[in-house]
Amino acid sequence: MRAQSRAGRPRKSAGRPSAREDLLDAAHALMSERVAIDVPLVDIAERAGLTVALVTYYFGTKDNLLLELALRHHARWEAQLQRLLDRPGSAAEKLSLHVGAMVRAFRRAPYLQRINHKFLRSGADNDDTRTLARALINPLASFYVKLVEQGVAEGVFRRVEPMHLYLMIIGACDMLFTAESSLKHGFGIEAVDDAAAAGFAETLQTTLLTGLRTTAPT
Amino acid sequence: MRAQSRAGRPRKSAGRPSAREDLLDAAHALMSERVAIDVPLVDIAERAGLTVALVTYYFGTKDNLLLELALRHHARWEAQLQRLLDRPGSAAEKLSLHVGAMVRAFRRAPYLQRINHKFLRSGADNDDTRTLARALINPLASFYVKLVEQGVAEGVFRRVEPMHLYLMIIGACDMLFTAESSLKHGFGIEAVDDAAAAGFAETLQTTLLTGLRTTAPT
Repeated sequence: MRAQSRAGRPRKSAGRPSAREDLLDAAHALMSERVAIDVPLVDIAERAGLTVALVTYYFGTKDNLLLELALRHHARWEAQLQRLLDRPGSAAEKLSLHVGAMVRAFRRAPYLQRINHKFLRSGADNDDTRTLARALINPLASFYVKLVEQGVAEGVFRRVEPMHLYLMIIGACDMLFTAESSLKHGFGIEAVDDAAAAGFAETLQTTLLTGLRTTAPT
Repeated sequence: MRAQSRAGRPRKSAGRPSAREDLLDAAHALMSERVAIDVPLVDIAERAGLTVALVTYYFGTKDNLLLELALRHHARWEAQLQRLLDRPGSAAEKLSLHVGAMVRAFRRAPYLQRINHKFLRSGADNDDTRTLARALINPLASFYVKLVEQGVAEGVFRRVEPMHLYLMIIGACDMLFTAESSLKHGFGIEAVDDAAAAGFAETLQTTLLTGLRTTAPT
């Protein structure tokens, strides 16, 4: 990964959990619990049973740790998206599975969107933001292109812009999991629990499966 | 956008009630041009033909100026939403008009979402964030509740959660106008111009008008 080559230090051998992965796991656990990314490095080290010096050794800065954590998530998403494309099934089934999977992914790691916001919505454009943007968007963009192709070929989707599909799915999920204060005041939602997440996934699935059909609204 | 005075030529005094609005207009103009909210107060004062001391006099801090600017936008949205509810027309027509209006509103002031993100997605919960959250969300929440009611009564919408409608519309718009770096890398979009905004509005309108219908997908 990027930070490694920058630091010039080899990853620990596969086969046993490395301190590096332990630190990322600890960061994930703490940020999930606190639904926040401003978790002190000392807390992350402590959770992993390691020293702050090791955090600095592996990641350099807090920002770099956040980037690595986001990149790890996005690599997993990419593998999942590819498996979904490769499996048998109609485009409609894959769209439905994808929406459910994305809502669950956001629910499991709500802090991830805060990292993406921090780096991708600040207007900054540098090597780090470009690396993160590509890791986040390219697998999804590619997935939506192929999903629309399949759905059009099957005669069930109209030829919608893949980017529009991205905005309707990821934009909605992003707002559900990062706009708590708005949702609380406007809709009386105290927290997005499993039931709220599942309810939203169902609405999004039904709306898209109906709304992308080839027939125009009457 | 209002006509601007030439830079550096003071034309207003503190005693005139419009100086405050002029400063908000100048901030709006500069933030729209730069698609950023980190515009120096001195630039805002200069654009308004006023002094930085007056900015401080009226707003105290930069954050407060940002809040006031967002509140002014949200007050205008609230009036527009009420007019849309009060006018004749079906729920489907109103939904379509609303989607078009929201996309245009985001397009006219893309920086507004950056202000909302700054205050509402940071996890902070204080008087300022609560005031802004209520001004942003309450008119929209109320609008969606009434729109769904009308659509269900007319037999054209299923009983969708108003919050889900909010997420699908505002979440998608938000991402279109604040995730440029992702969209650029994933979909080759250099900028969201009028054509791109109109194309997205059309997709969202068609998808929702079809996707919210009472008939289930086949």
